[in-house]
Amino acid sequence: MTANQKDISVSKRLYESVQEIWESYHQHSFVQGIGKGDLAMDRFRFYMLQDYLYLYDYAKVFALGVVKAKDPNLMRFFADNVDQILNGEMKIHQSYMNRLGITKDEVANARKSPANDSYTNYMLSIGFQGDVAEITAAILSCSWSYQEIGSRIVSAHPQSLTHDFYGEWVQGYTSKEYVDTNDALLVMMDSLARDYSEDQIQNLMTIFVNCSLYERMFWDMAWNMEY
Amino acid sequence: MTANQKDISVSKRLYESVQEIWESYHQHSFVQGIGKGDLAMDRFRFYMLQDYLYLYDYAKVFALGVVKAKDPNLMRFFADNVDQILNGEMKIHQSYMNRLGITKDEVANARKSPANDSYTNYMLSIGFQGDVAEITAAILSCSWSYQEIGSRIVSAHPQSLTHDFYGEWVQGYTSKEYVDTNDALLVMMDSLARDYSEDQIQNLMTIFVNCSLYERMFWDMAWNMEY
Amino acid sequence: MTANQKDISVSKRLYESVQEIWESYHQHSFVQGIGKGDLAMDRFRFYMLQDYLYLYDYAKVFALGVVKAKDPNLMRFFADNVDQILNGEMKIHQSYMNRLGITKDEVANARKSPANDSYTNYMLSIGFQGDVAEITAAILSCSWSYQEIGSRIVSAHPQSLTHDFYGEWVQGYTSKEYVDTNDALLVMMDSLARDYSEDQIQNLMTIFVNCSLYERMFWDMAWNMEY
Amino acid sequence: MTANQKDISVSKRLYESVQEIWESYHQHSFVQGIGKGDLAMDRFRFYMLQDYLYLYDYAKVFALGVVKAKDPNLMRFFADNVDQILNGEMKIHQSYMNRLGITKDEVANARKSPANDSYTNYMLSIGFQGDVAEITAAILSCSWSYQEIGSRIVSAHPQSLTHDFYGEWVQGYTSKEYVDTNDALLVMMDSLARDYSEDQIQNLMTIFVNCSLYERMFWDMAWNMEY
Repeated sequence: MTANQKDISVSKRLYESVQEIWESYHQHSFVQGIGKGDLAMDRFRFYMLQDYLYLYDYAKVFALGVVKAKDPNLMRFFADNVDQILNGEMKIHQSYMNRLGITKDEVANARKSPANDSYTNYMLSIGFQGDVAEITAAILSCSWSYQEIGSRIVSAHPQSLTHDFYGEWVQGYTSKEYVDTNDALLVMMDSLARDYSEDQIQNLMTIFVNCSLYERMFWDMAWNMEY
Repeated sequence: MTANQKDISVSKRLYESVQEIWESYHQHSFVQGIGKGDLAMDRFRFYMLQDYLYLYDYAKVFALGVVKAKDPNLMRFFADNVDQILNGEMKIHQSYMNRLGITKDEVANARKSPANDSYTNYMLSIGFQGDVAEITAAILSCSWSYQEIGSRIVSAHPQSLTHDFYGEWVQGYTSKEYVDTNDALLVMMDSLARDYSEDQIQNLMTIFVNCSLYERMFWDMAWNMEY
Repeated sequence: MTANQKDISVSKRLYESVQEIWESYHQHSFVQGIGKGDLAMDRFRFYMLQDYLYLYDYAKVFALGVVKAKDPNLMRFFADNVDQILNGEMKIHQSYMNRLGITKDEVANARKSPANDSYTNYMLSIGFQGDVAEITAAILSCSWSYQEIGSRIVSAHPQSLTHDFYGEWVQGYTSKEYVDTNDALLVMMDSLARDYSEDQIQNLMTIFVNCSLYERMFWDMAWNMEY
Repeated sequence: MTANQKDISVSKRLYESVQEIWESYHQHSFVQGIGKGDLAMDRFRFYMLQDYLYLYDYAKVFALGVVKAKDPNLMRFFADNVDQILNGEMKIHQSYMNRLGITKDEVANARKSPANDSYTNYMLSIGFQGDVAEITAAILSCSWSYQEIGSRIVSAHPQSLTHDFYGEWVQGYTSKEYVDTNDALLVMMDSLARDYSEDQIQNLMTIFVNCSLYERMFWDMAWNMEY
């Protein structure tokens, strides 16, 4: 740890450690396609269904946060996120599934792609083995990078917000509600890791980088409709 | 399994297996004291604080249900119960803690009694090791027996509902909302165990009986203010 | 933390925290009966069967140590203990079960007593939720107190080592192999908690005291043949 | 399930489901290189270090088997495998690391590759969430495919057994000890799944296929020395 690392928040160190990876999201054909509004519908359809399946496991990782938390406020924080995913974020997905004609049967019979499965089982494994800080680091990569992606898309393509089809997606991840939820996660991360040793912080960074790599595989999978 | 056990629902078999134990709740000095309205306040104060601590772990067992559930509807069911406990049932407790002058500091520094700790760690251990049916069986004893206790108290002492101090407690566990939540748990239990073998049902009964024994220890602990 | 607590090892602090509880083991009719050699055989028979069932779960707690350990040496340490319990300590029990005419069928159909079940599920719950230091604190109370009991018995009743029936038990828990295994656990405890904060040490003490209380319930259960 | 699937053992169904994937192992440049004895040493060095790190987590999955097993014989089976990995299979690795000049420091500082990490965390996640049959299905793909690879190599290249460098590896995975251990795992798989419904068997097949896909990524990672 160099002298001034003590003065840098953990979330800032996490952020800096993934700049190169996250930049590749912004340049990704799939993400660019949403921004420009010309992403082929079948790719988005594939993505939407996989992301829907992803969210169930994502909610389970938060539920493991409820289980591992010793502080009641932290328990409530994780529990509210479970609720927010199952009853909030998934509503955007359900709206798109209606528009895309994805039936409940299709959802029920859909299988997670290997890339998707690797990602969620990695987070679940961390969740079972680790503590609340490790759980938060695992969760953060998805939540935070989507906020960045949304924000970058809107800067580059302001009209993306009102796009007939992709506008709802862009609005979702740039909404005040979404940003606030993610900000709360960042505050939590810094609070949980406040007294962490450099070794413990390095461990959080490894988890965060790994999840960021899984995010990239997820975008690749979506673009290639890779099962 | 005798011939007609096939026709009896699992919840009915669970219920029959604990009749003697549950009857001892109804006769318990603590429960009788709530019904008659003459329970010493210090005993109730002790109970209330321990029960409040209990609910955090009880919510964690439901959160393990979210983690273990494969069916999305089941995940939502468990998640709604986590929310219902942390933001619903605990409100009754918070109201009583205000009335009893129990400060946030006192709560934060309170330690679970050994009887309380044994009970919740038993459920958590089942939750980590077992499946959703075992989790439901563990959860059910508390939920269901409180409904029975509330119902019996109101039958024997109709005026208990309007008692100045204990009325709120009696109302809580006889409210339509509480009864509906518990009924949903019963339906879930029978649904999850529908195709269970006799060995698997016996295992659920063992869990249910154990939790019912822990409930009795909890009433004893409350009466004796036993730390 | 008083000034000189920094200089006291964690294991020494754990030890001091349970002196009163452990003293009650030494005075316990069951333990005294083994020392004097006049313990009624049916009580020992009851104990032996419950202790045998206990050891399976005790081995599982060590197995959770294998799962949670990040250091390969620590993994091997826990794994060796699993092996030592399943293939070592249990041999004494099997020898006694032969002598007592306890058949494999009786073992297979035996159920753990509630006191036994509370104890092992507490340790398992800690094992699933906690880290390797918490697991070691949970494990330590049984291991260490048996060494102390064995040592005290031999001091007070040197002839207990050659008692026709109970001698094998006394020899087992005073053997060099047993003492070495327990000593290694103590070294591990101090090593794992070396940089622990006072809050973390207090948490280890709570676990250690709780397990020591469960040990006393176990002796009570054995004496009363309480199912 | 077609009529005659009832007569096919679960292990046979698992085997048939991965024939195409496993065939790609046999044709894999890395595996062929071991068979012909001309695999570049730096690729093997990379592989050996990653496989060594893999085995620690593989042992943890067996340790979760110890935790989840209800049958004492099954507990012992899993525990013996933990011991066999940590003190048996790893000896081959340690011998190679000596020959390759891989120091303890290099091992201690080595990080698992993403492909490796995905594989082991998948198995661990199954281990925490699932039952002993799911754990066995997850474990089986590695164990069984290595036996097949060893056997195929020796058929095609009998002289591979005495190759100066790779001979020890080929001997290890074709030794009677290794084959017996894997056979025991197959017997266990069929025994655990004996009364499984078609849905449950399909679930085991999904796990087995996923792990077989991870095995292929592992061979790719080794060949490409991909970190």
